[in-house]
Amino acid sequence: MIDKLIEKIQKTGAPIVVGLDPMMKFVPEHIKKAAFEEKGETLEGAAEAIWLYNREIIDKTYDLIPAVKPQIAMYEQFGIPGLTVFKKTIDYCKEKDLVVIGDVKRGDIGSTSLAYAAAHLGKVQVGNSMCAGFDEDFATVNPYLGSDGVQPFIDVCKEEKKGIFVLVKTSNPSSGEFQDRLIREGISAGTSADAGGIAFADRPLYEIVGEKVAAWGEQLMGSKGYSSVGAVVGATYPEQGKVLRKMMSKSFILVPGYGAQGASGKDLVHFFDDNRLGAIVNSSRGIIAAYQNDKYSQFGALNFADASRQAVIDMITDIDQALTNIGR
Amino acid sequence: MIDKLIEKIQKTGAPIVVGLDPMMKFVPEHIKKAAFEEKGETLEGAAEAIWLYNREIIDKTYDLIPAVKPQIAMYEQFGIPGLTVFKKTIDYCKEKDLVVIGDVKRGDIGSTSLAYAAAHLGKVQVGNSMCAGFDEDFATVNPYLGSDGVQPFIDVCKEEKKGIFVLVKTSNPSSGEFQDRLIREGISAGTSADAGGIAFADRPLYEIVGEKVAAWGEQLMGSKGYSSVGAVVGATYPEQGKVLRKMMSKSFILVPGYGAQGASGKDLVHFFDDNRLGAIVNSSRGIIAAYQNDKYSQFGALNFADASRQAVIDMITDIDQALTNIGR
Repeated sequence: MIDKLIEKIQKTGAPIVVGLDPMMKFVPEHIKKAAFEEKGETLEGAAEAIWLYNREIIDKTYDLIPAVKPQIAMYEQFGIPGLTVFKKTIDYCKEKDLVVIGDVKRGDIGSTSLAYAAAHLGKVQVGNSMCAGFDEDFATVNPYLGSDGVQPFIDVCKEEKKGIFVLVKTSNPSSGEFQDRLIREGISAGTSADAGGIAFADRPLYEIVGEKVAAWGEQLMGSKGYSSVGAVVGATYPEQGKVLRKMMSKSFILVPGYGAQGASGKDLVHFFDDNRLGAIVNSSRGIIAAYQNDKYSQFGALNFADASRQAVIDMITDIDQALTNIGR
Repeated sequence: MIDKLIEKIQKTGAPIVVGLDPMMKFVPEHIKKAAFEEKGETLEGAAEAIWLYNREIIDKTYDLIPAVKPQIAMYEQFGIPGLTVFKKTIDYCKEKDLVVIGDVKRGDIGSTSLAYAAAHLGKVQVGNSMCAGFDEDFATVNPYLGSDGVQPFIDVCKEEKKGIFVLVKTSNPSSGEFQDRLIREGISAGTSADAGGIAFADRPLYEIVGEKVAAWGEQLMGSKGYSSVGAVVGATYPEQGKVLRKMMSKSFILVPGYGAQGASGKDLVHFFDDNRLGAIVNSSRGIIAAYQNDKYSQFGALNFADASRQAVIDMITDIDQALTNIGR
């Protein structure tokens, strides 16, 4: 699946992904009104509103971009009707030939991770039939439970030619609370803590996780130098991104944190390789709620999806210029 | 919500929770046949089968136990029909006055965690209405993203009188891969790594997380000495459980790993306080698939739920004896 993503990035010249993370406050009033009139101020009404909103944004941006990243939490909060629209959004994006990255951040112990992997990337057996639950192209995975929580995803990816992005260094302010903790190399709990006279190199946890991602990735190498096991590294941490880019030289990096979270094109350059590959940058509210931004207010709420299209064009230009300035 | 859980544990004398983690291979043939005849070998058919299976187990065990823990992955793999049965199972268990722990292991950055918290423990605003998505009593939470990923859950718990269990030391074989890594105390990435002449105490990551859980818990203290912010610590790691029990003296511990994963009553004693409180032990397949175990084979597939009832009784006895032997 990483090969398809790379081809689409090269074809569009846009190493970006649009985060379809609809919050009710982003949805224009005229859409909410129509949806609530039809289905009431209910979970069904909310789900209908986000579906109408998503569809218009997809229609106005799909030709410019390689991929979308729906954040499942924003659908899950509307219960079953919300998740039904999550599925409908995935199917619609796949019809438009977009690569769909399910931002689900799942992760559990072995057999349970296998169920999550089947849910989002694979199939389940029911009697003699094989059925797919959500069927994204990629899923994001939380590594806290270790290899036996991640391996089932890799196994399903092998079978289905799908991919994952493993959380390494997330974009949020408190990501350092655990991820930046310095790890004593070479010893772990249960072994002797006697360190007398031995010199240790301490490294942050995210590097240890990054190293694992690189190792897991060997199992799923594509034909273009990158693995279908990628990593999530926040644009808000460019220095860490630079280190991780080198350490995980075959792992594509999914980079959240651009735009609304504060990062700009120049923060991103070190996430890319010399061929302008190796990274795909996400923007969510910066694109889907562009019409609420002063910069795009001339579009107005009725033309919200045109504002999104313009924001996509501007984001592509911003990243392109940053990569050009650094000579890539 | 922790007060209600404690009351129910004291009333039943059963510090246990039944993990409703239905896998198709656990569901007896006669149930699958009935479900597939009605709804086909489809996601709907699979969902119907697990619903019929769950309902019978709940009917035969609810009077003995304080709580259930449905594992959402086992429903999510069957897509929308599966998640519809997840919701139906939650509602049915709440009708039976069981405490429902949604084993969802969610966790993300701030606004996204808030959406997950609303989905599972709270409500969302739709127009002028407040609507609940899944509405469990507790949810499990993954801490990898740090405080700003956990705090939204705590905020919703305050509002809704709900609770969470944060993953600290999970029960799976590779949980040590990151969770056991020894952390250099007092310094973190970005600060000087110059440690010349300073003595550092190294502690595993799970202790650092456990300490945070204890701190987060101060915000949600119940009236019985425990907080509605609990922790997940695997029964398969009794020594670590002993340390964490002391460190998180006000955090209830949800203990997976009993039975099928290898732990028995004697491994559990140190998770409890002197009043037989402080821990609730989960068993999933050991209960729900008991009829497939040689020990309960006399019940047969038709009476699978009677086998589950007997397995619950035996589990309660096993833990009771272990706690009696240690003088609790």
